[in-house]
Amino acid sequence: LILETAVRVLTPKDLQGKRVLVTAGPTWEPFDPVRFITNPSSGKMGFALAVEASRRGAHVDLVTGPTHLPDPPFLSTHRLKTAGEMDSVVRHLAADADVIVMSAAVSDYRPEEQAPQKMKKTDRDLTIRLVRTPDILAGVGAAKKPGQVVVGFAAETENLIENASEKLRKKNLDFIVANDLTQPGSGFRCDTNQVKILDSGGNVEALPCLSKEEVARRILDRIAGLVKKANHE
Amino acid sequence: LILETAVRVLTPKDLQGKRVLVTAGPTWEPFDPVRFITNPSSGKMGFALAVEASRRGAHVDLVTGPTHLPDPPFLSTHRLKTAGEMDSVVRHLAADADVIVMSAAVSDYRPEEQAPQKMKKTDRDLTIRLVRTPDILAGVGAAKKPGQVVVGFAAETENLIENASEKLRKKNLDFIVANDLTQPGSGFRCDTNQVKILDSGGNVEALPCLSKEEVARRILDRIAGLVKKANHE
Repeated sequence: LILETAVRVLTPKDLQGKRVLVTAGPTWEPFDPVRFITNPSSGKMGFALAVEASRRGAHVDLVTGPTHLPDPPFLSTHRLKTAGEMDSVVRHLAADADVIVMSAAVSDYRPEEQAPQKMKKTDRDLTIRLVRTPDILAGVGAAKKPGQVVVGFAAETENLIENASEKLRKKNLDFIVANDLTQPGSGFRCDTNQVKILDSGGNVEALPCLSKEEVARRILDRIAGLVKKANHE
Repeated sequence: LILETAVRVLTPKDLQGKRVLVTAGPTWEPFDPVRFITNPSSGKMGFALAVEASRRGAHVDLVTGPTHLPDPPFLSTHRLKTAGEMDSVVRHLAADADVIVMSAAVSDYRPEEQAPQKMKKTDRDLTIRLVRTPDILAGVGAAKKPGQVVVGFAAETENLIENASEKLRKKNLDFIVANDLTQPGSGFRCDTNQVKILDSGGNVEALPCLSKEEVARRILDRIAGLVKKANHE
């Protein structure tokens, strides 16, 4: 905490007084009280983004699915489990946010039905219906206010640039951070990340393999630039 | 490590030279490279059991699904993801084990098919077929050798004693540790545990709410007793 306080004093306050909403981690979509669908997200990238935004003077709300990471100091951490819960909390907080960074790995599908007790296993196979979860990022993009900065993430195993640029356009984002999950030292459960940043002007910046903290600084540098530009318009 | 060395010196060596196999953690059953079915197991109970067995002088193999816990010192940690992988490793190690403690929360079902690339979401719902994973504990129980001690775990949300005693009998276990997941301070993602121990003689011991380390000591006391008895027969 002493070290964190020293780092904060030394960080330029280019987001002073701004409200920043960051989503992080996976979601858990349950079949029953003890079984669920999820993904390998550790929450590290989102937590690093929230900490860096806070160091720059922002009031930060970190909305996170289940992770082993402790609550960071100097910001508000909201913990939840499902995509549906994340959708409600994000809708509530997004209206007042100057910046929204959606780095959570939200489950696209959830089991249609949820058993109230642990299902007993049988010798037979099971068929389960999966239904779509709310598209939280599309909701945020559609409700985007003038001057509000909205950033998304895309994690792909193929056609990275095509998929990410389509998401950027469809979801009305300022920029998107694209992550090739097939690259070593990139993506889930990893302390480093190698990403490409695509902006709404059609530019692509390929960053080298960096620590997630350094990736967070690069992303916040861009965000601070967009916020400054929005304030001058 | 210095503290651990001191604790080891002070622990009675009632499993000296014995081979103990412990399973821990959840398993991940993938749909595609980034989505899977799992459960909330943290691995803490299994890791505590492995550490305690090692302190008592046993040669310990810890076979664990994905967890955030680091490899404990002085024992062999085998990391894997799926129930199928755990089945292979356990079969290989079980033949030479004097004691087998199956505390992993193995997924009962896995998706029948696994997509090689991240599935693109569509607007339509999905139907997936789930098939049974190998019953690792039943395999170990069926192959049980004279004098080998086999211990299982049962985590339930209802009918705890009935379900646990059926499992004890069907899987040919020496005793089973039964965990009521609806109790506060018990079960998954928790540092404490309140369990009942059912043995093959029909006895039930209800332990109070204890740290997972203390639960591990109680379980290893029972195991050491059974090993001693087996050696004298």
